[in-house]
Amino acid sequence: MRIITISREFASGGRELGKRLADALGFKYYDSEIINEIVRHTDFDAGFIDKVSDGEVSFNFHFGRSFGFSVNQPAIDVLAAQHKVISELADKKDCVIVGRMSDIILDKKLPLKIFVYSDRDHKIARCRERGELHPEASDRQIIRKCRQIDSFRRRTHDTFAPYRWGDRRGYNLCVNTAGVDIKKLIPGLKEYALAFFDSQKQ
Amino acid sequence: MRIITISREFASGGRELGKRLADALGFKYYDSEIINEIVRHTDFDAGFIDKVSDGEVSFNFHFGRSFGFSVNQPAIDVLAAQHKVISELADKKDCVIVGRMSDIILDKKLPLKIFVYSDRDHKIARCRERGELHPEASDRQIIRKCRQIDSFRRRTHDTFAPYRWGDRRGYNLCVNTAGVDIKKLIPGLKEYALAFFDSQKQ
Repeated sequence: MRIITISREFASGGRELGKRLADALGFKYYDSEIINEIVRHTDFDAGFIDKVSDGEVSFNFHFGRSFGFSVNQPAIDVLAAQHKVISELADKKDCVIVGRMSDIILDKKLPLKIFVYSDRDHKIARCRERGELHPEASDRQIIRKCRQIDSFRRRTHDTFAPYRWGDRRGYNLCVNTAGVDIKKLIPGLKEYALAFFDSQKQ
Repeated sequence: MRIITISREFASGGRELGKRLADALGFKYYDSEIINEIVRHTDFDAGFIDKVSDGEVSFNFHFGRSFGFSVNQPAIDVLAAQHKVISELADKKDCVIVGRMSDIILDKKLPLKIFVYSDRDHKIARCRERGELHPEASDRQIIRKCRQIDSFRRRTHDTFAPYRWGDRRGYNLCVNTAGVDIKKLIPGLKEYALAFFDSQKQ
């Protein structure tokens, strides 16, 4: 199977890039399907699963000033189910998977690992365009939100991966979407992906 | 003018990628021409210029245990000439320039800035293939040499650039050549570059 994993900074357009690339290649695009599958495998609700899956939930609790900590078992259970679901989906069809630690989970299957990022101004513009945050939020508030979500992703990633989140060495290609039209980049990325998989065969 | 700058880790294949990409796009490829032009603008010989240009020469001398230092004026002169030569060449024709701080020098002209990198094993293989180092050099010796050259490049770069050498945020695209056939990546990169320049126009 040919697998593309997309890791991304919040508001960099990684999801749009992943979806468009999957469409161009005729690959399956997995996103909410993963959450739905985890719901089927566990007793947790989709909201909790989504939070764990995106790194918003920590995997251990520290006790006050002591050095002891206890593991967050429900979060670990969700991660285990996510591992299973993603591994199984990736064995079925050529696919693009955005986030959800797919780069780590599928590393052994030699996916094309893409990291998508952008700069401050373009992230703010993208957030305003999508209208996800409060329309009266200041630039500073928007960028603080972006950083917070990235820090969740980084924490979860770095807990499990042998390389740091966003460090080029962990990826095959890092794409800066600042100031470019993502739609236009797709034909080149499609060619690139096909050449990558072609190289791997040898 | 459309400009592509290639920054690269030693033995990552950045030069090959740059040359092939220039050929595919029909862009000029500047490499030794730059040294020759600097020779024409200064009184230094090509060997010294090449060393400064590639970061092997430091720009200041520290005096023993004191905190004083003095500037290495010949190296600064070479850099100034390099700045002039690269700026002028980039104004003449669409081009690809590998290294020589072209990403910093041409930043205001909005080039497509590519960083090319690879992993340990593929760098060693590339060094052996090219036969540049002693044929009996051990893997450790080869990789130590690669790191040393990269550290020169990093030092020169970080002295003058607002971003760290190899940090994805300073580049538009970071390409990992480990395990892929550079020749095959070119059509995709060519498409990508054309889409990038097309986006910039708007």
